[in-house]
Amino acid sequence: MGMDFFEASAERFSYRGSYLPDAVPRSDLERIMQAGLDAPSGCNKQTTSLIAVDDPALLAQIFAIMEKTPSKNAPAAVCVTTKRIVAYKDGWGNERCYGVQDYSAAIENMLLAITALGYASCWIEGYVTDADEQGKRIAALLGVPEEESLICVLPIGRAADPAKRVRKKPFEERTHFNHW
Amino acid sequence: MGMDFFEASAERFSYRGSYLPDAVPRSDLERIMQAGLDAPSGCNKQTTSLIAVDDPALLAQIFAIMEKTPSKNAPAAVCVTTKRIVAYKDGWGNERCYGVQDYSAAIENMLLAITALGYASCWIEGYVTDADEQGKRIAALLGVPEEESLICVLPIGRAADPAKRVRKKPFEERTHFNHW
Repeated sequence: MGMDFFEASAERFSYRGSYLPDAVPRSDLERIMQAGLDAPSGCNKQTTSLIAVDDPALLAQIFAIMEKTPSKNAPAAVCVTTKRIVAYKDGWGNERCYGVQDYSAAIENMLLAITALGYASCWIEGYVTDADEQGKRIAALLGVPEEESLICVLPIGRAADPAKRVRKKPFEERTHFNHW
Repeated sequence: MGMDFFEASAERFSYRGSYLPDAVPRSDLERIMQAGLDAPSGCNKQTTSLIAVDDPALLAQIFAIMEKTPSKNAPAAVCVTTKRIVAYKDGWGNERCYGVQDYSAAIENMLLAITALGYASCWIEGYVTDADEQGKRIAALLGVPEEESLICVLPIGRAADPAKRVRKKPFEERTHFNHW
């Protein structure tokens, strides 16, 4: 089962509704994570790691930590961690790290994979990395090593509610040809 | 014309070879940029803008600025700019901005679109944003407004050389189920 890339790109949206209780098979979680690992990383440092969670008791604990987050009944989730690795030093001695770029590309790939497989999700990073450090508590729960930061949770499941899509600026406002 | 999402995800790679001279039709550049705009952005702030370049004289000027970059003969490129917009203030008064996440998701979508359409590309950000500020000089050339930072150039064209793919860590090393 799959979906055309352009269809997946156009169909993907941030879902904040309730989920159906249907379990997400491990084989689908593996395909979703493989898509995440397919993403490029600055100087191939592969700074991103992934933890799929489908244990109902663990999911309940994670969603209890994520107080302000909607969609607390997803039957699965992928947690995203990042490790600070210097990609290179530029000619002026500055350390260049691309961890945020790396995990963002991995997350976008996973969101497209989730869409292509008929599931819904939402990129939940803000709540997780706010000053109350929900991410640190989730990391402790999952046994994530010290040097890794847990920065995002993607709930995964079949949507129970209708899609609500945000309005976006028209194409012409955000794109240009040859000159701004 | 299209490609299955999972195929595009697996096929995408960073191409640093030479390009064939075949022009990239505007309709393809539009599909690529639309995929970029399809990507999510933190609190829907849509911080990313795109400039497709297919004017040969302008491309020559851009690639002349990008001294250390390979693949200087691509027949087209998309330049990516980002504007600092605060997504929200967290409960502790910290301004949260997701510009890097936003443009990274947009770039990954475009790389997949480029792959799905049979073109090659490479995420060139490091050279562009190093301390010699190539991005600022390219931005000046393209008339990019002051408040926008040009942070990435994606060359686009048909590959003339064979694909060289980087080796990646095995799936098991970067993924976990329910516990690290």
